Amino acid sequence: MRIGVLTGGGDCPGLNAVIRAIVRTANGRYGDAVVGFQDGWRGLLEDRKINIHNDDRTDRLLTKGGTMLGTARTNPDVLRAGLGRIKRTLDDNGVEALIPIGGEGTLTAASWLADEGVPVVGVPKTIDNDIDCTDTTFGHDTAVTIATDAIDRLHTTAESHQRVMLVEVMGRHAGWIAMNSGIAAGAHLTLLPEVPFDVDDVCTMIKRRFQRGDSHFICVVAEGAKPVEGSFHLREGGIDEFGHERFTGVAHQLGVEIERRIGKEVRTTVLGHVQRGGTPTSFDRVLATRFGVHAAEAVHHGRFGQMVSLRGTSIDLVPLSEATKQLKLVPENRYEEAAAFFG
Amino acid sequence: MRIGVLTGGGDCPGLNAVIRAIVRTANGRYGDAVVGFQDGWRGLLEDRKINIHNDDRTDRLLTKGGTMLGTARTNPDVLRAGLGRIKRTLDDNGVEALIPIGGEGTLTAASWLADEGVPVVGVPKTIDNDIDCTDTTFGHDTAVTIATDAIDRLHTTAESHQRVMLVEVMGRHAGWIAMNSGIAAGAHLTLLPEVPFDVDDVCTMIKRRFQRGDSHFICVVAEGAKPVEGSFHLREGGIDEFGHERFTGVAHQLGVEIERRIGKEVRTTVLGHVQRGGTPTSFDRVLATRFGVHAAEAVHHGRFGQMVSLRGTSIDLVPLSEATKQLKLVPENRYEEAAAFFG
Amino acid sequence: MRIGVLTGGGDCPGLNAVIRAIVRTANGRYGDAVVGFQDGWRGLLEDRKINIHNDDRTDRLLTKGGTMLGTARTNPDVLRAGLGRIKRTLDDNGVEALIPIGGEGTLTAASWLADEGVPVVGVPKTIDNDIDCTDTTFGHDTAVTIATDAIDRLHTTAESHQRVMLVEVMGRHAGWIAMNSGIAAGAHLTLLPEVPFDVDDVCTMIKRRFQRGDSHFICVVAEGAKPVEGSFHLREGGIDEFGHERFTGVAHQLGVEIERRIGKEVRTTVLGHVQRGGTPTSFDRVLATRFGVHAAEAVHHGRFGQMVSLRGTSIDLVPLSEATKQLKLVPENRYEEAAAFFG
Amino acid sequence: MRIGVLTGGGDCPGLNAVIRAIVRTANGRYGDAVVGFQDGWRGLLEDRKINIHNDDRTDRLLTKGGTMLGTARTNPDVLRAGLGRIKRTLDDNGVEALIPIGGEGTLTAASWLADEGVPVVGVPKTIDNDIDCTDTTFGHDTAVTIATDAIDRLHTTAESHQRVMLVEVMGRHAGWIAMNSGIAAGAHLTLLPEVPFDVDDVCTMIKRRFQRGDSHFICVVAEGAKPVEGSFHLREGGIDEFGHERFTGVAHQLGVEIERRIGKEVRTTVLGHVQRGGTPTSFDRVLATRFGVHAAEAVHHGRFGQMVSLRGTSIDLVPLSEATKQLKLVPENRYEEAAAFFG
Repeated sequence: MRIGVLTGGGDCPGLNAVIRAIVRTANGRYGDAVVGFQDGWRGLLEDRKINIHNDDRTDRLLTKGGTMLGTARTNPDVLRAGLGRIKRTLDDNGVEALIPIGGEGTLTAASWLADEGVPVVGVPKTIDNDIDCTDTTFGHDTAVTIATDAIDRLHTTAESHQRVMLVEVMGRHAGWIAMNSGIAAGAHLTLLPEVPFDVDDVCTMIKRRFQRGDSHFICVVAEGAKPVEGSFHLREGGIDEFGHERFTGVAHQLGVEIERRIGKEVRTTVLGHVQRGGTPTSFDRVLATRFGVHAAEAVHHGRFGQMVSLRGTSIDLVPLSEATKQLKLVPENRYEEAAAFFG
Repeated sequence: MRIGVLTGGGDCPGLNAVIRAIVRTANGRYGDAVVGFQDGWRGLLEDRKINIHNDDRTDRLLTKGGTMLGTARTNPDVLRAGLGRIKRTLDDNGVEALIPIGGEGTLTAASWLADEGVPVVGVPKTIDNDIDCTDTTFGHDTAVTIATDAIDRLHTTAESHQRVMLVEVMGRHAGWIAMNSGIAAGAHLTLLPEVPFDVDDVCTMIKRRFQRGDSHFICVVAEGAKPVEGSFHLREGGIDEFGHERFTGVAHQLGVEIERRIGKEVRTTVLGHVQRGGTPTSFDRVLATRFGVHAAEAVHHGRFGQMVSLRGTSIDLVPLSEATKQLKLVPENRYEEAAAFFG
Repeated sequence: MRIGVLTGGGDCPGLNAVIRAIVRTANGRYGDAVVGFQDGWRGLLEDRKINIHNDDRTDRLLTKGGTMLGTARTNPDVLRAGLGRIKRTLDDNGVEALIPIGGEGTLTAASWLADEGVPVVGVPKTIDNDIDCTDTTFGHDTAVTIATDAIDRLHTTAESHQRVMLVEVMGRHAGWIAMNSGIAAGAHLTLLPEVPFDVDDVCTMIKRRFQRGDSHFICVVAEGAKPVEGSFHLREGGIDEFGHERFTGVAHQLGVEIERRIGKEVRTTVLGHVQRGGTPTSFDRVLATRFGVHAAEAVHHGRFGQMVSLRGTSIDLVPLSEATKQLKLVPENRYEEAAAFFG
Repeated sequence: MRIGVLTGGGDCPGLNAVIRAIVRTANGRYGDAVVGFQDGWRGLLEDRKINIHNDDRTDRLLTKGGTMLGTARTNPDVLRAGLGRIKRTLDDNGVEALIPIGGEGTLTAASWLADEGVPVVGVPKTIDNDIDCTDTTFGHDTAVTIATDAIDRLHTTAESHQRVMLVEVMGRHAGWIAMNSGIAAGAHLTLLPEVPFDVDDVCTMIKRRFQRGDSHFICVVAEGAKPVEGSFHLREGGIDEFGHERFTGVAHQLGVEIERRIGKEVRTTVLGHVQRGGTPTSFDRVLATRFGVHAAEAVHHGRFGQMVSLRGTSIDLVPLSEATKQLKLVPENRYEEAAAFFG
């Protein structure tokens, strides 16, 4: 049997560990050949691929961030228009099953391909933890670990200067990284996309904390955090009136607003791409490895149209159609748990 | 209301984070007073305690390893004999509910106290991950992270010298630390208490790997790993025939045996106490915080005789009597998953 | 004897370790009292201070980032105008010698105070490594370590997406952090304030690397890096034409320019304040401790008007007037050493 | 020109970074070919070698621990007897200059080869920091960092259990790792090979600390630490009376003795090989890179019989004969500096 693998969407610590585990299981255990398509769906559309063997070089992938296959984002329309070519590439290469590893976009495409008759097993990947029907995915723990380490460091500098510090972390639609790193690092406030914030309340909370004699205020801001209507005008990024690009996200703009309102020195840090790179944590290496093993097992047993999923301590299979129905957002009760530590 | 807290058994990263979260919830949210008994059950037996307030000092506990209350192991018989004194201490201090944070021994005692009419809510603590009825507990992720980091380092030194390296990690009864760090760090073999090993097989595996041209062999050994009968005589630690203390655990003895049998240079490292100290990982800080919040909530709502527990992404309550029936060992299917990467 | 201590300028990992070592030596060894003035020179101007004893609480400062005394930047004119008040505060508190710990600004003030008859021993502090007459200072190694760790992570994400990545690190006048982290993390180009860059050359280098088939390009940019004249218009930060604050530093602007010129995806990360916070590295803890010991010894032996300094493996004293004459910039031969790895 | 490179003695973080820098300079800059001999001097004796090119694979060596060339310890007599073969290997391969990277043994051999007319430039390597005529070498900072991180962790567990903890670190002849990690991690006592200890004094110090109400005692022990005569019988390791191997070093034996004398719980941790493996710190990467560049430059300019050396901030050349005259031990004044923090 020949099995195709590809990685799509943004890169994520643990992708290589999944590939290694698939190869170890499919090739090492069952003697199947593994073909890696390069740069996400593009590799399938353009028939660019490499063979991956169960050798020492593959074994060393375990601790390496990023993806040896490269990755890219592909427009869904381009993909739909390319169904014929995709099927041809699979046929030409004798690939009988495909394992796409990716986030919501990649898995939605995988689900559609499954509907179109392609034998597919998906592996969920997201540092944002926003894929539904799985307790979590690899990459998220690494991202939270990096963000927490950064916020730990910001505490001491904020204290020494008695400052307000805003830290922008990833999370356009779901605030899991913000919430978890905020809890882990003892942030005094965390702003999520799921719960619009009121600048008045933010300022009141900050003032109250300093009035109590506390020395600093750390606020974690998800990049997708949004003010409630009427609270504060959040400008879109992009090109300004003079053709100059602007890079100020929500945290920078909120920082200016807070400084203006309460007259306290505010500093803003945008963690950016460091959150998605580098060696995965041990948690993510174990989860990625287990996902890879179970994806290869699912292919071997012909369980197609499914996605591997962590449920408690077990790896289960859930229908791709089910998993891609909606994003997994931070539920209200989890936010309340976190909010108990605000102020 | 006055709530008592104590930490029992070996120390564990995250204990302080649990205490902080209990205080924040019980004291900060509900206005209850929190009394910390010192050095485990001894503090209750000897009426040694401190009041813990929801202040800045408590807030800083989040990232600190160990336990501000101190901890100790107490003989169960001593404890049983002291029931009267325990009840008196609780009465004298006006403590209406008790939250013991600890491992199997502490929770078994908590379960017995609950049977004796003391209002108790337990919090599971173990770096070994061997407490039943919870997906995992805080401390384990930190221990696995430390062990994985160490094994990552040993890879490069083993490769450079073409050595066999044995790494002994904690886990007397359950092999979770060994298994998870072995998967995470790409060990070539992992020996657990749950699956007795045959030295012949170990040596065969090592020889085969070097014959294939590989440069090194890393074996993770849980301190409770045991040979199958007839395979190799594992001597007990302790005092030798001349009154000299011996410190050689299973890894050291196995290392000597392998060296003798296959003539390869073997080096053994015993990670020891570094696995249980220091700042908890972000994963453990979040879990410890959630356990603390939910334990305080359980007390507030009078849900006694229970233990907080992670189930998927939720914190549940399970009866202490249920949770302390047996240790949670590594099941066969998990070991097989890991074993796919041996050799 | 009573000795005053203060920390001035930006905070820096190791400040607390210096304070601890001063207290241990002055108080613990010689029985002198130590008075800490708060928030830099302001504490002297406003007579705000605390006594610091050689106790367990002080001992724990070793690993803590930031400064327990608080810090602030003070306008030199304000300081000059306050000489009378400073002397009065010292007299009122019976302080016979002062140890200011700080960067170029603080040490220049210290040198002036020495000229005005105040018995002063300075301790150099700078993450930027730009203080003259000392091989290095504490804080720099920590900053380089944090930047290197971040760039290590960016490599894998840049490779996976075949991107150009710019990383802005601290260093307004001197490029030591950029140069050292660039060497340590294998950057493909590093831009320093000392060596103006030509955007044409930067673009040529990037194109050549991708033409050779390489997968990514990492460029470290010191915040004070500047283009050669005529190469590219670097806008000042600050308020734009509509009163909106702008936050784009040199790296962001350069990124836009590169993207425009060569049509490659560019991503920019500004590391910001995480570089100056958190636990110091072991190197910085040792150096900070030695500086503290030697500063206290210098005071004890009446060696005033001096600054402690690392020379090879020794801690020496150099005149403050000498040390504050000029900033220590990256010399040409060091830049050439680094440049051998560009491209 | 063809240049030979080899790595000898124990492995050390930064060896690969030196090799990379040599190749980048010799091959990339000057167009010279680089031949790597495998497994230390053995590769020269047995003519086992590989060509190393200035390519992407070599570039990735920067962050990798260990040595891509392998390493081994060679008996000096074997080496002396093999002079003819060594010269023949160099001739056969057209190697005109040799860069041995290693510790005292390797550099002594290099010095002898230089005397025998082989054009040699040495690069000092030692985690122990015991090579003379250089401020420090790469590998040491990484070892100290790892040891410090471990001791940081042991503090919290020792405090929680009110224990005495002994940590054995590397350093058979020189106590630099022990001293520096002891300072960096705030040990309460550090025992070095250079300063024999008296068990009575150690016990007195421990008792005094606990009497003062302190909660724990951390003692760092270099593996080569020795008692003063008459203080305590330190048994040699090796085989016991029954042919059983013993692994107890000085820390374990001292721990037993302390426990016996003062009745306090003592725990001992032997850090072992983790100190020499894994990714080098940024400090060591920069130093290793600079050493590699300057070694290749020295070869290019025909400066043979020399060793590269760090002096202040400069890389100098010193005669190999000078550098190998004696080991660099911890001098008395440095020990006294450290001792100010004992107790």
